[in-house]
Amino acid sequence: MVHISTAHEVLAVVFQVRRLGTPKPQLSVLLWQRAQEPQRGAWSLPGGSLRHDEDMTSSVRRQLAEKVDLREIAHLEQLAVFSDPDRVPATRTIASTFLGLVPSPATPELPPDTRWHPVSALPPMAFDHGPMVTHAHARLVAKLSYTNIGFALAPKEFVLSTLRDIYSAALDYQVDATNLQRVLQRRGVITRTGTTAQSGRSGGRPAAVFRFADSQLRVTDEFAALRPPS
Amino acid sequence: MVHISTAHEVLAVVFQVRRLGTPKPQLSVLLWQRAQEPQRGAWSLPGGSLRHDEDMTSSVRRQLAEKVDLREIAHLEQLAVFSDPDRVPATRTIASTFLGLVPSPATPELPPDTRWHPVSALPPMAFDHGPMVTHAHARLVAKLSYTNIGFALAPKEFVLSTLRDIYSAALDYQVDATNLQRVLQRRGVITRTGTTAQSGRSGGRPAAVFRFADSQLRVTDEFAALRPPS
Repeated sequence: MVHISTAHEVLAVVFQVRRLGTPKPQLSVLLWQRAQEPQRGAWSLPGGSLRHDEDMTSSVRRQLAEKVDLREIAHLEQLAVFSDPDRVPATRTIASTFLGLVPSPATPELPPDTRWHPVSALPPMAFDHGPMVTHAHARLVAKLSYTNIGFALAPKEFVLSTLRDIYSAALDYQVDATNLQRVLQRRGVITRTGTTAQSGRSGGRPAAVFRFADSQLRVTDEFAALRPPS
Repeated sequence: MVHISTAHEVLAVVFQVRRLGTPKPQLSVLLWQRAQEPQRGAWSLPGGSLRHDEDMTSSVRRQLAEKVDLREIAHLEQLAVFSDPDRVPATRTIASTFLGLVPSPATPELPPDTRWHPVSALPPMAFDHGPMVTHAHARLVAKLSYTNIGFALAPKEFVLSTLRDIYSAALDYQVDATNLQRVLQRRGVITRTGTTAQSGRSGGRPAAVFRFADSQLRVTDEFAALRPPS
């Protein structure tokens, strides 16, 4: 197929761990339902065409702002480019995806065509937006293991059972709270605030309250032995 | 500035650790010198325009093949998009960068306009290609800490002093061979082959020979405690 011109779009995969009527919170993604052809009724990632005078990060912020209050987004980063010549009909369009994360338990106001969907049960998705969600989820899972990115999904302050539920939802397997605490404290990712909270279970002991040490992404690996003296 | 149309290009930052007439090997990048305007004489990353019928990975492989034998490239991955509307003159061009790694001590044949340059002393660079090299180097440094990506810079088999020189060149600080061995063996990144080699120093003991366990990129973090039983 020969394309006369090429367009560029930015698409955001915005995740939040949410209670969607289920006992355990679930990793959810922000989608809007297409009211027009092509693929009317299918669900799309927020975003759209890059304007001539903006770079991609400005563009994704502008277009996300139409769907969700940007102040709710704690982390936004470029992910990947989807460049299959036939990924959408008509004009060839190259898509750059972004990962956006909203902390629990924020409840941003959404326009009527927009809704959170569990990543484990996506509705019929437009074009290649389904694989884009899968790719973004895989990147999130990897980054949870070697960075402090959990700060962008967690509340400002939390007890460990809350953080365990958030990590379990994002990783899609049950995490042990004691192991999680050990790994994240050893790496300096989370610290105690010095206060306690009721654990929620009736008769339970008050639980220690934690927070993330940083609210900027950083790599938190165990390679420090190789670093030069600072 | 208003742009009538937008073009898309792919650019490859290809690194190899090489001896460039220095006692210690250095991290080097593959560049070609522009023979024509704009920016005649400045040095560029290999790559060029995306064709209408190819995706970006096919495009970067096609264009890299004009500069270097692709069989020499042990790892190639998408990095980032550079989308400043004015990053190059005339037609707006969005650039996607790729990271390519060539193992030591391969010596690929190069066309006459193309040469390896030390990353620590880049020549005058075209457009935003200098910042692209800096960005790719930062990504390589990060990935050396949480993945097994060293496989794509090292020989198939090596003694630890060789691997230390490669990591030191790529990280741009002196790494201790004993620490490096401890970290990489604990993570299962490198294993002994069972053979030994002369250490190179006269009178030195024969040194153990190692290899990387994998030749595909994987995350080698210490988060295993959280993984589900497999």
